[in-house]
Amino acid sequence: MPYVNIQITREGTSPGATGATPEQKAALIKGVSDLLFEVLKKPHAATFVVIDEVPMENWGMGGLPVEEYRRQTAGKTS
Amino acid sequence: MPYVNIQITREGTSPGATGATPEQKAALIKGVSDLLFEVLKKPHAATFVVIDEVPMENWGMGGLPVEEYRRQTAGKTS
Amino acid sequence: MPYVNIQITREGTSPGATGATPEQKAALIKGVSDLLFEVLKKPHAATFVVIDEVPMENWGMGGLPVEEYRRQTAGKTS
Amino acid sequence: MPYVNIQITREGTSPGATGATPEQKAALIKGVSDLLFEVLKKPHAATFVVIDEVPMENWGMGGLPVEEYRRQTAGKTS
Amino acid sequence: MPYVNIQITREGTSPGATGATPEQKAALIKGVSDLLFEVLKKPHAATFVVIDEVPMENWGMGGLPVEEYRRQTAGKTS
Amino acid sequence: MPYVNIQITREGTSPGATGATPEQKAALIKGVSDLLFEVLKKPHAATFVVIDEVPMENWGMGGLPVEEYRRQTAGKTS
Repeated sequence: MPYVNIQITREGTSPGATGATPEQKAALIKGVSDLLFEVLKKPHAATFVVIDEVPMENWGMGGLPVEEYRRQTAGKTS
Repeated sequence: MPYVNIQITREGTSPGATGATPEQKAALIKGVSDLLFEVLKKPHAATFVVIDEVPMENWGMGGLPVEEYRRQTAGKTS
Repeated sequence: MPYVNIQITREGTSPGATGATPEQKAALIKGVSDLLFEVLKKPHAATFVVIDEVPMENWGMGGLPVEEYRRQTAGKTS
Repeated sequence: MPYVNIQITREGTSPGATGATPEQKAALIKGVSDLLFEVLKKPHAATFVVIDEVPMENWGMGGLPVEEYRRQTAGKTS
Repeated sequence: MPYVNIQITREGTSPGATGATPEQKAALIKGVSDLLFEVLKKPHAATFVVIDEVPMENWGMGGLPVEEYRRQTAGKTS
Repeated sequence: MPYVNIQITREGTSPGATGATPEQKAALIKGVSDLLFEVLKKPHAATFVVIDEVPMENWGMGGLPVEEYRRQTAGKTS
């Protein structure tokens, strides 16, 4: 009965996308459920996954909203 | 000072509804607050309840997005 | 598939108890699951409940740790 | 590597605003990150802040949705 | 900057273990971070993972504490 | 009615300490409550703060448990 909460910024990674696509979400759900089975033998039916997409202006890093942080650390990962 | 977070899928249970109704949410808030008073004597004024409605495609069960999971396990609960 | 997280301070409400008892926890689990069935028709098998007991010094209200807050507002609920 | 989650009701505090403004969110992010540096010496780059704005009807206090609670306790804080 | 919270019951899956082992936790951390890179191109350095181990009596399913639930549904997954 | 959850690793920052001290926790609680009053005019009495101290081996960054991550990135912040 694991519960997994994945929080990501709401932004697209493919052309035209404004957020994670349904296919990407399904891949996250499958991947996390497979992982819990492999590592802890948790049956797939017992794992809940909840994805939260957080508006960019609501996510902070380095004391700044994430977009401002990325501008200031351009070239670095975030 | 309990804090209770209720996460549900965003879907209607009454005709035409696309999510839990304000009346259903109020019933959840009242019910949880009553429960904490009955079981642990927590005064109603001290209990916070936060309801999160999660888009269907963001909720996973059995390694699948919940709608796909329901299709594959039709007739079973989810 | 609801997920409910109940956060309470770790303190006893019965003589000698240092936290909620297993019976009180079972009552919370049953009560919340019943509530979600009554209000939203969620089957019991589809509801996860996770109770977090938070050390007193880790919970703040009114800008103070909860024990200090209670001392200053003695007679009021918290 | 602290992670801080701030949950507030979605409502404006300035004329015409329907929620916290980007400036207010940036001030929360900066303030929390500064605080963790001052108190625990956590470097700013290591702190994540996630702000959740919760619809008014999804937040309960005193056994009631928050707007109803405020009406009944008018003049008191909430 | 994803944040992932994994909640599992505190119980061992290997002989003599009373909870997930450090190796199992490391495997969960690596697996989730790899997944977010593969699916969403999130750099490893930007992903936080927090594992919560929940005491058995604090986890509920089917309206019952999880151990009681497993007894009643023996042979089924949980 | 804000709710703020602060998650930190369980480790001392002062000699001999194995975690945040009660004084440091009280400073976090006061600082966050002051911040919400200053930025959003939330009355102190309406803010809950919950601090979670996470065991070092349960926190991951960069695909590794945090202690291993720090070893590999020695000299950098984490």
